[in-house]
Amino acid sequence: MSVLVVGTVAFDTIETPFGKAERILGGSGTYIALAARYLATPVRVVGVVGHDFPEAHVDLLRKRDIDTEGLERDPDGETFFWAGRYHYDLNRRDTLATHLNVLATFDPVIPEAYRDSKIVCLGNLDPTVQAKVLDQIASPDLVVLDTMNYWIEHTPKELRRVLDRVDVLVINDSEARELSGEPNLVRAAAVIRDMGPQTLVIKKGEHGALLFTNDTVFSAPAFPLEDIYDPTGAGDAFMGGFAGHLARTDANDPEELRRAIVLGSALASFVVEAFGTDRLLDLEASDLEVRIAAFQDLSVIPDMSRSLAMPSA
Amino acid sequence: MSVLVVGTVAFDTIETPFGKAERILGGSGTYIALAARYLATPVRVVGVVGHDFPEAHVDLLRKRDIDTEGLERDPDGETFFWAGRYHYDLNRRDTLATHLNVLATFDPVIPEAYRDSKIVCLGNLDPTVQAKVLDQIASPDLVVLDTMNYWIEHTPKELRRVLDRVDVLVINDSEARELSGEPNLVRAAAVIRDMGPQTLVIKKGEHGALLFTNDTVFSAPAFPLEDIYDPTGAGDAFMGGFAGHLARTDANDPEELRRAIVLGSALASFVVEAFGTDRLLDLEASDLEVRIAAFQDLSVIPDMSRSLAMPSA
Repeated sequence: MSVLVVGTVAFDTIETPFGKAERILGGSGTYIALAARYLATPVRVVGVVGHDFPEAHVDLLRKRDIDTEGLERDPDGETFFWAGRYHYDLNRRDTLATHLNVLATFDPVIPEAYRDSKIVCLGNLDPTVQAKVLDQIASPDLVVLDTMNYWIEHTPKELRRVLDRVDVLVINDSEARELSGEPNLVRAAAVIRDMGPQTLVIKKGEHGALLFTNDTVFSAPAFPLEDIYDPTGAGDAFMGGFAGHLARTDANDPEELRRAIVLGSALASFVVEAFGTDRLLDLEASDLEVRIAAFQDLSVIPDMSRSLAMPSA
Repeated sequence: MSVLVVGTVAFDTIETPFGKAERILGGSGTYIALAARYLATPVRVVGVVGHDFPEAHVDLLRKRDIDTEGLERDPDGETFFWAGRYHYDLNRRDTLATHLNVLATFDPVIPEAYRDSKIVCLGNLDPTVQAKVLDQIASPDLVVLDTMNYWIEHTPKELRRVLDRVDVLVINDSEARELSGEPNLVRAAAVIRDMGPQTLVIKKGEHGALLFTNDTVFSAPAFPLEDIYDPTGAGDAFMGGFAGHLARTDANDPEELRRAIVLGSALASFVVEAFGTDRLLDLEASDLEVRIAAFQDLSVIPDMSRSLAMPSA
């Protein structure tokens, strides 16, 4: 089934304790699409770049079966630029620069050929832009949205309006607490699901992810990696893998939602193994198989039926 | 098999956003024993209290099949006292008071009847005291130890010396990072396991726990609770449940270690539902069964074998 990805396509300058990469290909739309294409086809990208964006980057996406017809080039501006520096423990980062550039005036026009898209992935963007995209999609089966603290704080009304049109919200734990005003994540999930999204995925970085849907909760582990070079894009790759799996199955089936979480987590676990998108470019089916098997082994609880008898009973 | 528990038996004054409890029964030894006794028998306690410790508290332990012969009463001093206040999100707390009292001069003497104990649970205490306990146990099958940042910083040599005699170290994630000097938990585990403990359990509070043993890792979820009243003692109850299960099975079997983690997590999840030890006093076998089933449901990953095919493959 078709996946439409809307998000930033950007230049990133990234510093981690292990090195620095300057003006490399980045952006939420880039990572989401590069992850989703392992599971779904066609994957379509909507976004904007400036006159400085190399054609080679567009080719890189096209060669990986990503449809870039919706990637607009604005000849009057420069590409969105983000720079950040990660702390020693990689769990925190400081944003050093955010130059919106062409993103500041981005008014998405969805190509005719994209309007029948069934899965819509709204990467982290101004909720007004996210809503404009939804306005142009005929009848999506599933709308998945990411957002961030900035929009929760600065455009709460616009965010609430678009949330009402969303099936799955994918955010991190601090965002879930801020959006709901509840420190407890179970309560936060209930509050957020009342805002519209039937399903809520809470990303917890090195602690995995939680899935809240109907009355069930699924706790997925993060893959324990010895070598983490660059966390940039992991959350977006998670979303891409998650949505990519749901594009080929029944997105209302709780088991498929769990599989989608595991596939998203697996793709995210590759991203952090190298700078930028490097590790996400050319994974083999066998890479994914081995990682998925490791995920299952990591979290399996053996049969407990004979382990419950109490000595006093 | 016999479980020997060494730890504090204390008065706690606890403030959370949901209420306050003054001078209630607490201490690592208390929580460990109260949890272990659901799974193992006999459970024996070694510790010290002062002249002010009510006989009713000792009775409370005795009535729950906990052997208190090793609980010394020092008539010249007052019972160890701790006071703490939890923040709004319950993940952080400030210690308001720590009065060592009789603990300052505690020199543990293990009763003759305890010296054949097979599982030794060394709750968070001065590592010199922990070592003195080990000196008096004839031939333990399994030594489980907890410690904290204070001992890592102030008595590193003594801690390293006792760690060399330990089979399982149970600590939280910040302690694992501090003890190893490694921010990455996989690397931290390797460093710590080189210090002596063949098995390392890293507690992550609301994010669950990690088990590192041989070359395998197990990631256990925390139970997502809507109502958390008081986190005090959860880590100790975890250790008690963990050790209690291993007292009745093969502690070298990786599957039994996983079961021990789940039982510890389940008992810890009850503790936080009420102030102090309240919820841990009179659990029914059925309470534990229902919680364990919920843990399994929480973390089960469905079969993924049909979910791996790539569209481009």
